Amino acid sequence: MQKEIPYKIYLEENEMPKSWMNLRAYMKEKPAPLLNAQTLQPMTEDELSKVFCRELVKQELDDTSKFILIPEEVQDFYKMYRPAPLVRAYCLEKALGTPAKIYYKFEGNNTSGSHKLNSAIAQAYYAKEQGLKGVTTETGAGQWGTALSMACSYFGLDCKVFMVKCSYEQKPFRREVMRTYGANVTPSPSTLTEVGKKILAEHPGTNGSLGCAISEAVETAGKLDGYRYVLGSVLNQVLLHQSVIGLETKTAMDKYGIKPDVIIGCAGGGSNLGGLITPFMAEKLQGKEDYEFIAVEPVSCPSLTRGAYAYDYCDTGAVCPLSKMKTLGSNYIPAASHAGGLRYHGMTSTLSELYDKGYMKAVSVKQTEVFKAAEQFARVEGTLPAPESAHAIKVAIDEALKCKETGEEKTILFGLTGTGYFDMYAYQRYHDGEMTDYIPSDEEIELALKKLPKV
Amino acid sequence: MQKEIPYKIYLEENEMPKSWMNLRAYMKEKPAPLLNAQTLQPMTEDELSKVFCRELVKQELDDTSKFILIPEEVQDFYKMYRPAPLVRAYCLEKALGTPAKIYYKFEGNNTSGSHKLNSAIAQAYYAKEQGLKGVTTETGAGQWGTALSMACSYFGLDCKVFMVKCSYEQKPFRREVMRTYGANVTPSPSTLTEVGKKILAEHPGTNGSLGCAISEAVETAGKLDGYRYVLGSVLNQVLLHQSVIGLETKTAMDKYGIKPDVIIGCAGGGSNLGGLITPFMAEKLQGKEDYEFIAVEPVSCPSLTRGAYAYDYCDTGAVCPLSKMKTLGSNYIPAASHAGGLRYHGMTSTLSELYDKGYMKAVSVKQTEVFKAAEQFARVEGTLPAPESAHAIKVAIDEALKCKETGEEKTILFGLTGTGYFDMYAYQRYHDGEMTDYIPSDEEIELALKKLPKV
Repeated sequence: MQKEIPYKIYLEENEMPKSWMNLRAYMKEKPAPLLNAQTLQPMTEDELSKVFCRELVKQELDDTSKFILIPEEVQDFYKMYRPAPLVRAYCLEKALGTPAKIYYKFEGNNTSGSHKLNSAIAQAYYAKEQGLKGVTTETGAGQWGTALSMACSYFGLDCKVFMVKCSYEQKPFRREVMRTYGANVTPSPSTLTEVGKKILAEHPGTNGSLGCAISEAVETAGKLDGYRYVLGSVLNQVLLHQSVIGLETKTAMDKYGIKPDVIIGCAGGGSNLGGLITPFMAEKLQGKEDYEFIAVEPVSCPSLTRGAYAYDYCDTGAVCPLSKMKTLGSNYIPAASHAGGLRYHGMTSTLSELYDKGYMKAVSVKQTEVFKAAEQFARVEGTLPAPESAHAIKVAIDEALKCKETGEEKTILFGLTGTGYFDMYAYQRYHDGEMTDYIPSDEEIELALKKLPKV
Repeated sequence: MQKEIPYKIYLEENEMPKSWMNLRAYMKEKPAPLLNAQTLQPMTEDELSKVFCRELVKQELDDTSKFILIPEEVQDFYKMYRPAPLVRAYCLEKALGTPAKIYYKFEGNNTSGSHKLNSAIAQAYYAKEQGLKGVTTETGAGQWGTALSMACSYFGLDCKVFMVKCSYEQKPFRREVMRTYGANVTPSPSTLTEVGKKILAEHPGTNGSLGCAISEAVETAGKLDGYRYVLGSVLNQVLLHQSVIGLETKTAMDKYGIKPDVIIGCAGGGSNLGGLITPFMAEKLQGKEDYEFIAVEPVSCPSLTRGAYAYDYCDTGAVCPLSKMKTLGSNYIPAASHAGGLRYHGMTSTLSELYDKGYMKAVSVKQTEVFKAAEQFARVEGTLPAPESAHAIKVAIDEALKCKETGEEKTILFGLTGTGYFDMYAYQRYHDGEMTDYIPSDEEIELALKKLPKV
């Protein structure tokens, strides 16, 4: 029997987006600008261009263009692994016995294993266009580092990756994938940088964090001629590139006359969630449609649900500009967890602002519950999810079970950002009953927030 | 610019095959029947049903039905991860500077990481229909074991997997994926079976082989009530299920008016290659069209290029029936290599017969060259291939380079059976320059062939 809605909706190549969508252009109250940490003045294009590629700086500062053309070479690369399927989770719905209709946009069908490639290829393209030799970056779970390695290999750029130490150790094979694409990978914090040495002195034996690794990558780019730093999340430019997720999703849904009631995504720095919700949130901001948005974060790193909304450093070493965001403080080093991609102290300024103004909800979940949902999902839907992505699955299942209680036939959409093939150590810990949950105390969070910069 | 042929051709759900295609039905000279090793008479349906599921035995023996309906529940499962894309390798063509047009059918976009799921779900379905409790099997690289674990989990069956020891050790995380799907995994040879103990006594310190693991799985199924043995390759039934690969490919190519000149696949037991070529070979056998078919095998395990065409045991322990095939002898234990899925002493009887009659060519390649091709492919096409699949890539590249010399604009099709995400140890060895090639001596092969059963 041919189902009315297919299991997987793939757009045709000519239906794929030709432009990215800039969510900030739809916001009446714009996210606050990045500030120079010394002068406390908004960062200028010139200042930012010392760290980032020129064209990316323009995108970073542009909060008025609603659409920005995707360069043809990037569109071509997208065609290698996109369109990503929008999947109707028929099997999960059946297993849950819910009247809800569940959809997920699956971004894991590429070797980086996640949505990260969407921005990596764009950033590598602009670096190449600028005539740079290479780029530096950080990676947590390893997905962004892999994505950037692939993108740099494609455009013939050198790629230096600082990988959060606990991920580096838990995922030796991630490093090997990056090496296959010719990248150079260093565990962070390292003794290769001044900031790395300083962090190691202050926190001996630390597992590292995204915040530390960012500092090291920025410092390294600054020291090398023809290099710039690139970042896989948090920045406006990244949300812009990731809008391809939401644009494809909306086109596919519109084609079949589907309107989601609830849209759910995991949120570390916010790139996937920001990208997924962009065209939907734009409609909400314009009063055209209403949607419920839910950001899901780990209880061990609850920047939205327990953080302050304040100016803070994007990195632990305080070498970056200040960004106004929901934050736990750049000194907060989240407990080691199995969702390395969500171990970031802050949240992208756009989502922080939208959350603060009530356009978006957030919940925090325990990793043990997340892995339970991950396994349940894998068994019925086939795909073994990344721990990060499974945060969204957990809440999508919760929402679907609420519908079972109330009888509501809600349409639930979530972002399945990636696969867990390099996360089997985490699954092993879960299977062996060795996984625990760390919930930071109020005192711990207060202490970190006390160290927020005075702005 | 919209290319005439898209990067990826996805069929619509309603264009997916409703029936499998049975290649043997198109062969005038049928592959020789399985023989009872004691009586040397063709195996009867009753005899086979003691080892295999009833419906699968019927498929195994059926060499006249051209099409066999795919059960609706299997069709539904297929929709979870199929259709698989037919990819135009634009970037590889450009990198090679070849006038050839290269296509590959990519079967790796599912958690088992390969085409194996196509037959696993069918076999699990028939086991479930028969009211069995569970199944046993062997796995080499781990792809088949993972696929069967997923399929059994979906239908609520128990799954016991004997995993070739060298793969078990090289790929600890494969075991963990199987565990996620609830399977029980044992390294083979083990002391859990009589045949395992015997092999260990005769070959102390052996790395195991597919042939050993098959023996152990068959013995185990025979000892347990409500269990049958299932196999991921070699058998006719598996080629039948894998015809879904070729059928989708041909439908997609026909839709765009593409006719392949050369069709290439890696060949271990022959399931992927057999499935890919089915509809094309059927046309060749009927004299409707001509195609060149190339099977690619490792130099370390050259059953087609250096084996005898003779009746032999399918397994090392000689607990299985005899099959007439191209074989190196069931006593031949291939050197440890990084393409565990190709470490099998024989070749499915259908492909053996077609090769023997000149309908198909075969070449053997060195693993160091295979990994070179794998890395080249990954860097331009994005997808990091499984070592097995990379055998086909190597020869596809060779063919494309020949076209570059001659100026021929051939259309080359190959099967990209899976991804290498669990093969990073092998890539690491390659990167570190620690990978070597083992080419068996003539004496070694003659010695193994001397032990062929007298039929």
